[in-house]
Amino acid sequence: MMNQQAIVAKIVKLGEEIQEQVDQNNNPQMVMPQRGLGNVEFNENDKLLMLGDKKSSRAFLNIAHSRKFMQTVMIANLCKRLVEADKHASIREVYYQLKHTIEKTKENTFEDQSESDPVIEDLETMLNLLREELNLSADRKGYLYGNVTIKDAGDTINCAKLGRGGWGIPSNVEDIDFVDVDAEFALVIETAAMYERLVEEKFSKRNNAVLIATQGQATRGVRRLIHRVAKDAKLPIIVFTDGDPYGYYIYSVIKMGSINLAYLSDKLGTPDCKFIGMTMTDITQYGLEKVTEKLKGMDVKRIKEEMKYPWFKNRYWQNELKKMLKMDMRIEQQALANKSLEFVANKYLPEKIEGQQFLP
Amino acid sequence: MMNQQAIVAKIVKLGEEIQEQVDQNNNPQMVMPQRGLGNVEFNENDKLLMLGDKKSSRAFLNIAHSRKFMQTVMIANLCKRLVEADKHASIREVYYQLKHTIEKTKENTFEDQSESDPVIEDLETMLNLLREELNLSADRKGYLYGNVTIKDAGDTINCAKLGRGGWGIPSNVEDIDFVDVDAEFALVIETAAMYERLVEEKFSKRNNAVLIATQGQATRGVRRLIHRVAKDAKLPIIVFTDGDPYGYYIYSVIKMGSINLAYLSDKLGTPDCKFIGMTMTDITQYGLEKVTEKLKGMDVKRIKEEMKYPWFKNRYWQNELKKMLKMDMRIEQQALANKSLEFVANKYLPEKIEGQQFLP
Repeated sequence: MMNQQAIVAKIVKLGEEIQEQVDQNNNPQMVMPQRGLGNVEFNENDKLLMLGDKKSSRAFLNIAHSRKFMQTVMIANLCKRLVEADKHASIREVYYQLKHTIEKTKENTFEDQSESDPVIEDLETMLNLLREELNLSADRKGYLYGNVTIKDAGDTINCAKLGRGGWGIPSNVEDIDFVDVDAEFALVIETAAMYERLVEEKFSKRNNAVLIATQGQATRGVRRLIHRVAKDAKLPIIVFTDGDPYGYYIYSVIKMGSINLAYLSDKLGTPDCKFIGMTMTDITQYGLEKVTEKLKGMDVKRIKEEMKYPWFKNRYWQNELKKMLKMDMRIEQQALANKSLEFVANKYLPEKIEGQQFLP
Repeated sequence: MMNQQAIVAKIVKLGEEIQEQVDQNNNPQMVMPQRGLGNVEFNENDKLLMLGDKKSSRAFLNIAHSRKFMQTVMIANLCKRLVEADKHASIREVYYQLKHTIEKTKENTFEDQSESDPVIEDLETMLNLLREELNLSADRKGYLYGNVTIKDAGDTINCAKLGRGGWGIPSNVEDIDFVDVDAEFALVIETAAMYERLVEEKFSKRNNAVLIATQGQATRGVRRLIHRVAKDAKLPIIVFTDGDPYGYYIYSVIKMGSINLAYLSDKLGTPDCKFIGMTMTDITQYGLEKVTEKLKGMDVKRIKEEMKYPWFKNRYWQNELKKMLKMDMRIEQQALANKSLEFVANKYLPEKIEGQQFLP
């Protein structure tokens, strides 16, 4: 949420550095942090996946680089115009807008979005800015419900007064302000169906909670919103997913960031969030054996990978992951309906929150 | 939007009929319309895909039927309790809630959701009620934006005052009321990114339009909402998808219903809606050849199927579909960004709406 001027200044500086090199008859170069696996590390201090110190450079007078060099300058230019005009574009629109045949050649500037997307990531690392701060966005998913009042695009929205619908989380949440937050915590929920269950059960009002539905893996917009709810609205974050390796991965990405986007972890990650369930312990604790499923094809491989994550290297998570392998079971959030429809809202969640039964 | 009492009465009647047959020492039977392809026809009068007159029956004392008979009664019973208590359940919760081992046997009531879902469809046809009217729901998707005020679950929501987020369309829109509608038409949009573009360009305010994003194939909740916007809020519906066979199928389902759910077309279909684009004619008209893509694997087969749809059997659609085959091109909504980001909102859509350049 850097201001507009500071963002434009960063882009202008990139341009000026290139201009300077041209003026001095040097081969123009851009330097940026390497983004590959070889430069990703778990930062024990910040408890986040982050980039290391390795750099790479892109030179204009290098046949292997010059096309990408041109593309980088084109996208940087578009971003400057967008930020100045206070306009936004989807990364798909960026590709379409900039695609054209270079005069007097048969060469297209971009052949495919798979050429423009990585260049956008390059710019993010190079400028240390989120693409959202460059006014670029991608697909949106997710809903917000509860007693938090948000200001967005001139409107003031109380998210507890939106019927059962809730607020559709936009792809870009850089410009929203939290005007008023009257809640004790935010519950992040994997499935929209469970979110609707909790809205219907008035869980939000009864427990003074904000509800955020991710609808599967959280988009960048949703991860950024969770990060901002934690940081700016100062709410503790509790994550509630299915009890399977995919659910645990959703939690992991919300918490620590992902390897692909390690350069953004400090802006998208929420290292202090906690995990409430579903756990393997829940299955025996609440007698849910009958509504579990067997592990599926890729599950065992995923569980073994997750056991190696540094942030799962504690006895609580190791215990759950080992149990999952041993029991050969996975369980969904909605399986709690086997007890009763109200069980999740009236017993399961309140009991675990009361007893602080969270995984780290 | 039948009232609660009438819905309960229908379920009770089903139960009483079974009871009566038991009392008379008859083999209890349920009769319902056949749902297979052999009983689906295009109703020229209503311009909708609908079920024919063929019936099938389910008998309790028939080894091939008795398990399904039991399941039907179980789900009917759950629905009765839900409607009476004004509570809702997802179809996944229905499965989990009703799954148990029958006393003194090793038999489970349901083994998998694939057993409960078709029984819910049976009940819909048998009772001539939407599952939404039985307070059942499935996944949600989609957003609503614009100058329409809705009442839902006690809240009054002006959907033009929700920032860039818009209202998250719930899985079930049976109980919403349109309190105030100040718009001239509703534009239904395939991608959320295009929806965000039009929100940013203030298309809604400038053209007095309601925007509905389907995010790909429209869910039942979104189709029902479109149907209700047309019928109850009395707005003309204009559909805006990618120019490819998948986009045209999305339009077709919104308009006519689908073969699978033909028994619901009169409640989910919107036969009067019109199609604005993208068309193959747009490509030459606006000089967009450079930002098209070649047809993909399944496209040709799909186009040929669509040419046979009765509602595409007019020269406008036949012309477009033939052109698509001949040009070997598809085009996305977002490709309009090639002209400029504002082009779609300031020129493309207003021009086509002004000139009534719609496909039927």
